[in-house]
Amino acid sequence: MTIGFTLWFTGLSGAGKTTLAHLVEAELRARDYKVEVLDGDVVRTHLSKGLGFSREDRDTNIRRIGWVCEVLTRNDVVAIAAAISPFRDTRDEVRARIGRFVEVFVDVPLEVAIARDVKGLYRKALAGEIPQFTGISDPYEPPLNPEVIIRSAEEPPEASAARILAALERLGYLQPARQLAAD
Amino acid sequence: MTIGFTLWFTGLSGAGKTTLAHLVEAELRARDYKVEVLDGDVVRTHLSKGLGFSREDRDTNIRRIGWVCEVLTRNDVVAIAAAISPFRDTRDEVRARIGRFVEVFVDVPLEVAIARDVKGLYRKALAGEIPQFTGISDPYEPPLNPEVIIRSAEEPPEASAARILAALERLGYLQPARQLAAD
Repeated sequence: MTIGFTLWFTGLSGAGKTTLAHLVEAELRARDYKVEVLDGDVVRTHLSKGLGFSREDRDTNIRRIGWVCEVLTRNDVVAIAAAISPFRDTRDEVRARIGRFVEVFVDVPLEVAIARDVKGLYRKALAGEIPQFTGISDPYEPPLNPEVIIRSAEEPPEASAARILAALERLGYLQPARQLAAD
Repeated sequence: MTIGFTLWFTGLSGAGKTTLAHLVEAELRARDYKVEVLDGDVVRTHLSKGLGFSREDRDTNIRRIGWVCEVLTRNDVVAIAAAISPFRDTRDEVRARIGRFVEVFVDVPLEVAIARDVKGLYRKALAGEIPQFTGISDPYEPPLNPEVIIRSAEEPPEASAARILAALERLGYLQPARQLAAD
């Protein structure tokens, strides 16, 4: 049975990608899947130190995360990427390479992300202290046909995670939890 | 059962690292292990484009390969790295991070590697066309206590691969093939 796939969270900084990634991770581990979360910020320190935030450097970073997801997916690990990944073409390129790919658009109004400002980055970006900040001074291109859309301002993350897991079951990437429990 | 580990081939260019990596890979696949070969040259295109061959850039490249091996290992994949990885400290740093780590020193006399010159690189390096070429104009630090030493000028690669597999069984990373066959 092939079980590897890539679950790719995209959205603005502060949309809730990392929170959702770890909620889904916990549930998949509880169901005995092998799971690896590739968080954009963490991966930058391991794979992309020295890269900046130009279009080219962002694309390089996303392709590297995508390559690690591809390697994990073909070895039957569930790879969960949580990265702003603002450019549609680059996400679609990664999708095409991996094949078994589920895109989750974590949609949040910019003003909500600014109000949350978990990392204090929006304040700096709005003050002009961070150039090329997605949503403020750099573009974000939403997916046209993501497998899942989460509106993180409108429901608690646990409800979003449950909807993502249901989508993965519906798409055939996961065994329904109930069926497993009945075995 | 924990099955992931990293098999790390180190040695001069032309020592035979990639050949051995793929022979061991084939045998492990035949035994139903999940295996991923991380070849230094291939990984450079995916993870380290733009890096050169200074000590710092070499170390960065090796740490990136090591990080991918670590992620694979903890997800029960056998990661096989084939990279010159000339610096002892950097290899030992990767070993310490990964834990389940088997180092194979592919030892070959420099003059044999020069005579083979599979990629035509030694000719160029000796002509001064490639600066910082390991063994010619850049150092290679052999491991002090590798788990396996292969003298690739003295036996065919199939014999070396068999010795590596036997070592992996002896070290407890693989089930003995005979025992599996008897199941």
